Amino acid sequence: MRLIVLTLFIFFSNISLTQTDSIFIRKIYDMALEDGHAYENLRSLCKDIGARITGSAEAKMAINWGRELLESYDFDHVYLQEIKVPHWERGTTEAAWIINEEGKVVKLNILALGGSVGTSGLIEGEVVKVESIQELEKMSEDEVAGKIVFFNRPFDQKMISTFKAYGACVDQRWGGTNAAAILNAKGVVIRSMASSHDDHPHTGSMHYEKGVAPIPGAAISTNDANRLEKWLETGSVHLKMEMDCRFYPDQISHNVIAEMMGGEDDRIITFGGHLDSWDVGEGAHDDGAGIVHAIEALRILKELGYQPNHTLRCVLFMNEENGNFGGKSYAEIAAENKEEHICAIETDRGGFLPMGFDVVGSADQLAFIRGIVGDLKAYDLLKFNPGYGGVDIGPLLKYYPAMIQLGLNVNSQRYFDYHHSEADVFESVNKRELELGAAAMAAMIYLVDQNL
Amino acid sequence: MRLIVLTLFIFFSNISLTQTDSIFIRKIYDMALEDGHAYENLRSLCKDIGARITGSAEAKMAINWGRELLESYDFDHVYLQEIKVPHWERGTTEAAWIINEEGKVVKLNILALGGSVGTSGLIEGEVVKVESIQELEKMSEDEVAGKIVFFNRPFDQKMISTFKAYGACVDQRWGGTNAAAILNAKGVVIRSMASSHDDHPHTGSMHYEKGVAPIPGAAISTNDANRLEKWLETGSVHLKMEMDCRFYPDQISHNVIAEMMGGEDDRIITFGGHLDSWDVGEGAHDDGAGIVHAIEALRILKELGYQPNHTLRCVLFMNEENGNFGGKSYAEIAAENKEEHICAIETDRGGFLPMGFDVVGSADQLAFIRGIVGDLKAYDLLKFNPGYGGVDIGPLLKYYPAMIQLGLNVNSQRYFDYHHSEADVFESVNKRELELGAAAMAAMIYLVDQNL
Repeated sequence: MRLIVLTLFIFFSNISLTQTDSIFIRKIYDMALEDGHAYENLRSLCKDIGARITGSAEAKMAINWGRELLESYDFDHVYLQEIKVPHWERGTTEAAWIINEEGKVVKLNILALGGSVGTSGLIEGEVVKVESIQELEKMSEDEVAGKIVFFNRPFDQKMISTFKAYGACVDQRWGGTNAAAILNAKGVVIRSMASSHDDHPHTGSMHYEKGVAPIPGAAISTNDANRLEKWLETGSVHLKMEMDCRFYPDQISHNVIAEMMGGEDDRIITFGGHLDSWDVGEGAHDDGAGIVHAIEALRILKELGYQPNHTLRCVLFMNEENGNFGGKSYAEIAAENKEEHICAIETDRGGFLPMGFDVVGSADQLAFIRGIVGDLKAYDLLKFNPGYGGVDIGPLLKYYPAMIQLGLNVNSQRYFDYHHSEADVFESVNKRELELGAAAMAAMIYLVDQNL
Repeated sequence: MRLIVLTLFIFFSNISLTQTDSIFIRKIYDMALEDGHAYENLRSLCKDIGARITGSAEAKMAINWGRELLESYDFDHVYLQEIKVPHWERGTTEAAWIINEEGKVVKLNILALGGSVGTSGLIEGEVVKVESIQELEKMSEDEVAGKIVFFNRPFDQKMISTFKAYGACVDQRWGGTNAAAILNAKGVVIRSMASSHDDHPHTGSMHYEKGVAPIPGAAISTNDANRLEKWLETGSVHLKMEMDCRFYPDQISHNVIAEMMGGEDDRIITFGGHLDSWDVGEGAHDDGAGIVHAIEALRILKELGYQPNHTLRCVLFMNEENGNFGGKSYAEIAAENKEEHICAIETDRGGFLPMGFDVVGSADQLAFIRGIVGDLKAYDLLKFNPGYGGVDIGPLLKYYPAMIQLGLNVNSQRYFDYHHSEADVFESVNKRELELGAAAMAAMIYLVDQNL
């Protein structure tokens, strides 16, 4: 039934793109660019709190920060949604070095991968370089046991979408340590999944399969990876490393939620980003930007006196980075409560120039979205293609397979210069680009609410 | 005749977008992103030379730098084209301050506008704030004479294209000092035409009409303009300023040119940016980026063994910023030599993410361009709309009104944070975005050369 309505809609969509839509969207952009709160809110999240990994004191502060900010905007409801989350900490010791041919100590900058075990004191091993998990798996245990495996396959600079380049190398970070553990390696270091050549490592999540005795894994900077690669060309290299990262017992944490209520239609449009970040930098692009995008979108719609048709629900998800228990629990609770979810929109690709929205849905749903976004061309939102929604909203699809999911698509060129590293700070975000992202979110929520 | 050919072409253009095109364009991007010279060339221009205003020693060094670099790539021809240029210098004294209500000196950061006369010692006057030249022109000479006029109309943050926002306020910088001089003001300060709120002024060109006795004009930073505006709300403000900028006699300078020769078709495709910059910062985005884009585009085409159909001429124009004698002379010399120019492509909007090309031409020419760029969608080049080519290539239209002009269109959101200020340095340019700009230029030159 709905599909027929959608199909008819597509034919008449030009009629629905009334002057009212275009005037309202212009007002959204005017408010975002001239009287916006997004930039100051991001400054506050980055500077008043900073890095906020799940389970940390800062994550708790961020939950409080989010609730207080949302309450200050006087939305219909603001509440916390209880969830259980993992609690991993980097600890205080994190060091690696080699002794070079002249007997000199050369320090390598490392960051434990999120979820890694510590080293239990200093470990040392000969470095074995591989370019892929597949290459490692072809090796015998004799070649690997007791050594430090160095995963070296770089970020492919030739790809135009840096997310694709990231996707093409990140298996080393996620599964490389586990694969090396199976062959009884002592530890793993991984070339950072970064588009830039710099001295700071980029961390991120990893996992151990059940039954595998865990070994420690760490990221090294792209520059250090280049040096290590060079040293290995001329002889064997012994690497020492020490890390005291570890898991603590699971904790209770929260998603932070704000709602504007619709009329009679109580179906739900969810939108948001993730409140947690990695424990280095300030989580400015990942995903402070998405958090302030989502909050600002709801603020602008309210400030402009908009009366939504559906429930507009802004969710600041916890624990996207290492477990996604915020997103998983949100979807479970929604299903338990028999809520009706029709659309979810995520923003988790940084505070860069928005270019459109990725669409997760059927061909008809893609055509529906393309049919309602004509007014967004004036704002350089030109890309509405099949793609990815987001990690946080992904689990909703299990319970609501017929829903539409959208992911804010932004200029990806700089994201992996900063991603999961100490460089992801407030100063790396451009005010206008951040504000345009918030406006794009508000405009998209408005168009979906009006037309779905 | 040619129009008929063009029109026919449009209908069959899909046929010409062969796999060969798409493979060749992929090679261009691969080389730009993986083995590119653009970023290192920009570093060298910015750090080995730096700011290079027309007439300066650095401008002469930049001419030499450009010729040597182009010669190192072994193009068919590399030569200098002699032109006459103005020579204005900022001098060594540049200061402004007010004495506030408590009798304290408060310094304002100023930059003389390019082409301004100096103050001939310290000048002082009461500040008269206006929001436009029109507002000033409605005032009587009594209200203005002997005072310092403060042009305060800000950059309109609501506009999506920052070039439009710049265009909507830059008349104050270009004509404000002249308008104030007519009413016998003592001097002028102008709120910087900048998208950012910061402490550094953004300079740029201004002019005096014939017969007007010139008075000095300077830019103040956006933050200082905000403070000045506030002070003026509570009472009168006296401003003191001193500048010893001045013109020197005209000089001989040069455009720097490199060519790859075509087959039998000796019609010319010109492309380039401008080698001069303002005298603050390093001219990284304006227009070091354009210079290395253009050089890299020709290098890549040569390196890939491309045999052009037409003459591909890369021009590093001198003196775009304060006179455009490079562009004007280039066009005059072309006409004198009876050269046949069919297309010119300029890159002068910074080293940011490329989004397409503005097209200057007839409806048929616009359709022609849209017909040949299908392969560029994969590289996120989606905007091919009527617009502006560029200052340097503009004068060619006087002699070749039937030619097509194209301007590389890039993400404009950050450009006016840096423009004409000390912030326009190498570090503000992203490597991948710069390289994508060079690839976009090479791909566009290739497509035009193949199809025109």
